Amino acid sequence: MGTTTAVSPLAPAAFPDLPRVDGVRFSTIAAGVRYRGRDDVMLARLAPGSAVAGVFTTSATRSAPVLDCQDKLGKPTSDAAAILVNSGNANAFTGRNGRDATAAIVKATAAACGVPEERVFTSATGVIGEPLPFEKITAALQQLAETADPGGIDRAARAIMTTDTFAKGASVVVDTENGPVTIAGIAKGSGMIAPDMATMLVYIFTDAVIPQSELQDLVSTHNAQTFNCITVDGDTSTSDTLLVAATGVSGIDVSGDAAFSDGLHEVMQELAHLVVRDGEGATKFVEIAVTGAANDSDARTHGLSIANSPLVKTAIAGEDPNWGRVVMAVGKSGAAADRDRLSIRFGDVVVAEHGWVSDDYDEATAAACMKNQNLTIGVDLGIGPGKATVWTCDLTHGYIDINADYRS
Amino acid sequence: MGTTTAVSPLAPAAFPDLPRVDGVRFSTIAAGVRYRGRDDVMLARLAPGSAVAGVFTTSATRSAPVLDCQDKLGKPTSDAAAILVNSGNANAFTGRNGRDATAAIVKATAAACGVPEERVFTSATGVIGEPLPFEKITAALQQLAETADPGGIDRAARAIMTTDTFAKGASVVVDTENGPVTIAGIAKGSGMIAPDMATMLVYIFTDAVIPQSELQDLVSTHNAQTFNCITVDGDTSTSDTLLVAATGVSGIDVSGDAAFSDGLHEVMQELAHLVVRDGEGATKFVEIAVTGAANDSDARTHGLSIANSPLVKTAIAGEDPNWGRVVMAVGKSGAAADRDRLSIRFGDVVVAEHGWVSDDYDEATAAACMKNQNLTIGVDLGIGPGKATVWTCDLTHGYIDINADYRS
Repeated sequence: MGTTTAVSPLAPAAFPDLPRVDGVRFSTIAAGVRYRGRDDVMLARLAPGSAVAGVFTTSATRSAPVLDCQDKLGKPTSDAAAILVNSGNANAFTGRNGRDATAAIVKATAAACGVPEERVFTSATGVIGEPLPFEKITAALQQLAETADPGGIDRAARAIMTTDTFAKGASVVVDTENGPVTIAGIAKGSGMIAPDMATMLVYIFTDAVIPQSELQDLVSTHNAQTFNCITVDGDTSTSDTLLVAATGVSGIDVSGDAAFSDGLHEVMQELAHLVVRDGEGATKFVEIAVTGAANDSDARTHGLSIANSPLVKTAIAGEDPNWGRVVMAVGKSGAAADRDRLSIRFGDVVVAEHGWVSDDYDEATAAACMKNQNLTIGVDLGIGPGKATVWTCDLTHGYIDINADYRS
Repeated sequence: MGTTTAVSPLAPAAFPDLPRVDGVRFSTIAAGVRYRGRDDVMLARLAPGSAVAGVFTTSATRSAPVLDCQDKLGKPTSDAAAILVNSGNANAFTGRNGRDATAAIVKATAAACGVPEERVFTSATGVIGEPLPFEKITAALQQLAETADPGGIDRAARAIMTTDTFAKGASVVVDTENGPVTIAGIAKGSGMIAPDMATMLVYIFTDAVIPQSELQDLVSTHNAQTFNCITVDGDTSTSDTLLVAATGVSGIDVSGDAAFSDGLHEVMQELAHLVVRDGEGATKFVEIAVTGAANDSDARTHGLSIANSPLVKTAIAGEDPNWGRVVMAVGKSGAAADRDRLSIRFGDVVVAEHGWVSDDYDEATAAACMKNQNLTIGVDLGIGPGKATVWTCDLTHGYIDINADYRS
């Protein structure tokens, strides 16, 4: 760990200039949890009344902070709140020690920020199976609470990174029926931290007014089409966390507002794409658009089967329009398919139709298409109205380099 | 294709000296389907009355030969029979052309061998989506039928190879209650043939007397614990085929004989292991033994989740005793698990117990264990009687080299 990694070739040119979100203040500090010479703890202080919604990993071995957050969502929202995140140690698979560490951090955060413990949400990302040196974090909390600043979201984005090769942020300003509101978010993910799996953490903030239950519904719905439709290697972290906080400070009520929902979806999708763009060893960003499935669920199953197939992902790395491997992945997915109705395209090039290679197929044209850094694979099952889009990256020597290195 | 590949470091020293099985004769020929300078078609002629059982890929896009074989199993067994296999072209995803090619090969095989068409079983492995030049095969059938010889099983094992790096065979002589019978089999698999996925083909022969329905039951049962418990990359071929033929020529009835069942299991397990040992780029043979699961099905789900995890497989390649990744794979599998009851060992080294790192854990000892070419990972869920063992290999740069190369 700590190894300098080249920035992903799929990274944006720069971190975006994110707008401030009224009612949120950020601070970061170098607490020395594991890394040296960089901030590794971030605090986000949320105005009284903020609604907090979230979704979490479905892992059966999820971490102590995840379990703690899940318990707290949906509780009364009249108090102020806080989100406290450390990188370097995931506090996962640490038994009773892990629960104690989370409790200590929650208690210290609540005290420093003057909020109830049930309004403190924590996350941790990094090495698993090692006790979290929580005293380093609790000792820093007073300073964190005092230095929180509305303009610190870019530093927050960097403090939560593990082996991410770039900081990730996205925002929109939405013209709702009642006036403009801001949505801004940060994410980390898909950089491996030795000796741990990639963990995805996402924090999104808005100044809109919205009831917690409605915000939770929106987050769950959009999550199914954004973060749950991306995959780098099909592995699932014990710590994945997405929190969305609505401070309400704008005074603008967005209940039932379609533009707000679309704006939140846009930010979530952009952050999800950024996570894929930082996939270990990734050199191609791949959209897999599935149509004509029996239903949307089947479409997603086919899409993820293609996106997770090592044979498809290595073919993409090799710039090989290898549609046979796409057929294979559809066949093995377990969702309904009819070999003789299947059509496949790479970009705009129709490769296979009705179960066989297209009459118009030209290998050279398809091969040229595969050289693009952003690539779309279209699959039509030809049996129903179901559709889904998933996103992934290719599987390269870089992935092996990053993940087969011994930890020490 | 045709590239010379170094033999897998996990290969046995030599092809075994397989015993002859009375009632089976083999022949091979260089028909020029795709490869040059090697045999690419094999014929196995089976004595009248041979019982033929089999299992096949569950892919929804399975090939024309697979569909044809599935239709024929369980039919009357008084006639002689034949198995005809070509390498170089899988005749998969070839639409109506594929069905016609299979029909032509079946017809020619039946005529050359003097058997009914419903007693001809064919397989094809190799490139998919390209029409099979079946005339090259049908033109060779008279010569194949005339030259069949009881001693040719080693040549048959080589003729069905695609990019396998070694030929695979296994046998046992079983002392049943009624006397000795022989079981001998060959397999190919896990070598990629550009531009296709790995296909596993397995043919096992015995001179025992056994009804087809009982043989089918045995094959299905043992398949669940052997070939369905191996994985190289989690991808599933459109063409996987396992056929077991009992010629009955020994006159020894093995109905209900436990030793015969055990012997068949042994041959199937050995062939399954050989397929893993030829996994693309494999440098480690890994056994994953899961115990204490809620039931056997859950145990297998956990085992395959571990075996298919790119993060676990790259850790093994890096000789890193990274038990955190094993925890992750258990957590994501979807089967029941309790984080705080989970125990993990690498070889004889207990790494984690009851949800946390073992008190006795010594990293240097665990790291030394990971240097072995044959490695066992033990996982105990601590919640029930379920158990399963699965086998896999590591994920290395060799896998990327083999699968990311452009086809031409």
